[in-house]
Amino acid sequence: MKPSSSKKKLKTLSIHPRGFSLRAQSIEPPPIAWLMEQKLKRPNLISLAAGFTDPETLPVEETGHIVHAWTQHKSQAREILQYGTGSGREHLRILTARRIADLDQMPSTGKTHDPSKVLITHGSQQFLYLVTEALCDPGDIVLIESPTYFVYLSILKYFGIQSRSIPLQPDGMDIQHLEEQLEALKKSGQIKRLKMIYLVSYFQNPTSRNTSLAKKKAMMDLARRYESAAGHPIYLLEDAAYRELSFGQTPPAPSMLSLPGASKRVIYSGTYSKPFATGIRVGFGISPSPLHQTLCHLKGNQDFGTAEFLQAILEKALSSGTYDRHLGVIRKGYAKKSDRMCRMIQRHFPASVSWHPPEGGLYVWARLPQPNQTGPQSALFKASLKANVLYVPGCYAFGDDVLGPERQEAMRLSFGNANLKMIDEGIRRLGEVIQSIMKRTS
Amino acid sequence: MKPSSSKKKLKTLSIHPRGFSLRAQSIEPPPIAWLMEQKLKRPNLISLAAGFTDPETLPVEETGHIVHAWTQHKSQAREILQYGTGSGREHLRILTARRIADLDQMPSTGKTHDPSKVLITHGSQQFLYLVTEALCDPGDIVLIESPTYFVYLSILKYFGIQSRSIPLQPDGMDIQHLEEQLEALKKSGQIKRLKMIYLVSYFQNPTSRNTSLAKKKAMMDLARRYESAAGHPIYLLEDAAYRELSFGQTPPAPSMLSLPGASKRVIYSGTYSKPFATGIRVGFGISPSPLHQTLCHLKGNQDFGTAEFLQAILEKALSSGTYDRHLGVIRKGYAKKSDRMCRMIQRHFPASVSWHPPEGGLYVWARLPQPNQTGPQSALFKASLKANVLYVPGCYAFGDDVLGPERQEAMRLSFGNANLKMIDEGIRRLGEVIQSIMKRTS
Repeated sequence: MKPSSSKKKLKTLSIHPRGFSLRAQSIEPPPIAWLMEQKLKRPNLISLAAGFTDPETLPVEETGHIVHAWTQHKSQAREILQYGTGSGREHLRILTARRIADLDQMPSTGKTHDPSKVLITHGSQQFLYLVTEALCDPGDIVLIESPTYFVYLSILKYFGIQSRSIPLQPDGMDIQHLEEQLEALKKSGQIKRLKMIYLVSYFQNPTSRNTSLAKKKAMMDLARRYESAAGHPIYLLEDAAYRELSFGQTPPAPSMLSLPGASKRVIYSGTYSKPFATGIRVGFGISPSPLHQTLCHLKGNQDFGTAEFLQAILEKALSSGTYDRHLGVIRKGYAKKSDRMCRMIQRHFPASVSWHPPEGGLYVWARLPQPNQTGPQSALFKASLKANVLYVPGCYAFGDDVLGPERQEAMRLSFGNANLKMIDEGIRRLGEVIQSIMKRTS
Repeated sequence: MKPSSSKKKLKTLSIHPRGFSLRAQSIEPPPIAWLMEQKLKRPNLISLAAGFTDPETLPVEETGHIVHAWTQHKSQAREILQYGTGSGREHLRILTARRIADLDQMPSTGKTHDPSKVLITHGSQQFLYLVTEALCDPGDIVLIESPTYFVYLSILKYFGIQSRSIPLQPDGMDIQHLEEQLEALKKSGQIKRLKMIYLVSYFQNPTSRNTSLAKKKAMMDLARRYESAAGHPIYLLEDAAYRELSFGQTPPAPSMLSLPGASKRVIYSGTYSKPFATGIRVGFGISPSPLHQTLCHLKGNQDFGTAEFLQAILEKALSSGTYDRHLGVIRKGYAKKSDRMCRMIQRHFPASVSWHPPEGGLYVWARLPQPNQTGPQSALFKASLKANVLYVPGCYAFGDDVLGPERQEAMRLSFGNANLKMIDEGIRRLGEVIQSIMKRTS
């Protein structure tokens, strides 16, 4: 009875004293905004929270060179200071399709890695938003990893979408659980409302886990198997935001775009922001053709298209080799910082805290033993803030259907923005806080 | 009976064969996208259609200097290549509030021109979209000028909003008609669904008309008078996109932000894209506080915030005087091109075509005598395309409730992107096409 009573409540609220729309009335400030503001407001705070990137290695000179070269070629420069098309610059779309095909070890760009299916967006966040808007009505269902990318949970909530959590294992979603969930949705008839399975497949935010190719295949098989019951494609939204931030030499598994049947149901979301510069917000997505068209129209309505100037900087960085050189530098940098964070955790955290060393990405996911809690109202979080160190409480990364203790036991620690000294000091302080809180609760 | 039957139709469609959301199913490609693509696809086409800006005067060197200077100040540069906050850079918000206060001849930034109420967006299109999303549910009502900015009509349609057209006179909306409309809405009880009055108050797109201060006051008075019946503020969304593109020395009328009562109901939308560079998409809006907060949350969901790099370029251009110097250059340039277009129209168009010379902006609005039609299916439009010249058919600028002949008789001609030679040739060709079509219909 709960959903219908909340619907009634919305109806009663429909004449808001300020005239706001129903959806706007229910929007909550996203936790990311609050966490980002803490960092920007308190310069002395050591933030191991926000997914900001490393400031030391930002491509200042590279960007300067690219822009300076344009001043020597005025006609080219004029083109990039002008409006463009909604889907994005053609050359950037070609470079993007080719790049993902290379990463997927595909011989050519082919049916799935197709420039005409690439949409350039204002960060990959915008792409995730557009996809969700294009596919989901209020009450629709999206299956998510548990834990998952917490900003995406805000998008789902905003659209009134039901998320169903599938436990995440070291190599990806628990496939048996996924199958049980699909079967249950089929039996209840709700599978018609299931639109997507969302996975963050590389160095996942927040756990840094990778989804194996075997699990990607199993997910694809399951999606295809349950589509006739659904009456429409069950889309696989693969968020590959951290794919290029690997520390090792072995490339992580190919994306789902490389699998048979991908052209009908795989939606690939990627970004150039985190690998290059988050201040130059360029993300992208590859989708099945009919969906791609709709996404272009939606984006046209929202902002006409991504700023040409930003797109052109990335285009130049990619085609000149600047991007790849830069990537080499930051991979090494993040590997070093990750290693440092892990060593410090080993030194300062109690042995009962469980975590594993990441092989890429920006995060360490640490779980405290029961009954310690990490939430924003917990003694631990408050004591950490008092010690001027900030983490992301793990609870933000769980869907509303997860009520167990795992919701309250974890923290996401980022080595993205902090330098080595801050990592040392931040983890030391946090270790002290954890030790003292655990002493109290034991 | 029509609305409910169309609702039923949507319900039946709810399981779309591709799983699209109800809203996405109904989206149509915006006419602007189609028009822009024509221009980009056919290099020989003389486009007097799209609102592209002048390529010759784009600030190539200015932008190069700004970016180059950053490479000398690495710590500053790093900040602008990083994520920022959802509402936008503080300094840019301060500069923006001060700039609009100056334009409004206000002594200080005060209660309405308040940096904390400024939201920086990815072009003003995004701001208009966010405001509409925040205020309107499907079935809500927005009063619009007739004709109005055609891209905004796409936004209204997408959100399922009813637009009610108020005829535009040379100095703004027909106030008597506006009052009658408000009274009718009050009588029918529908005024509770009325959320906004939307006006493009400076060098309007498409007519280049300005709204006088007297009319702004009258609109404000009417909005206030009918608010108790509405049960919430009736917002005045003032789209000032072309405000800075005036040709003369006399500044156009102050904005509605300067009027008593503005802080509760005026939403001001502005842009730096058209005056500076459309490839550097930075727009902004000023709104009453509670609405501003909601807009920030919505933007956080959609894209986290506008790219710092773009914001920082504008910030520097504004604070260094580069922006104002550039504005001086492009104003003169557009004045010259406008003058040339008017002289060519006078020479080549039949005297029975009515139009008036603009005092700013990018457009001439020309109306043909009955029974000539200008729509995309008309003989005139097709013959123009064949002659390789493109205009915006006037019909795109009218709400669905306008059925009279004015819908089919006008064209919007832009002198924004075309150079003098193209204006000469484009208007000459168009004049020939009009003459020949009018001969046929007379």
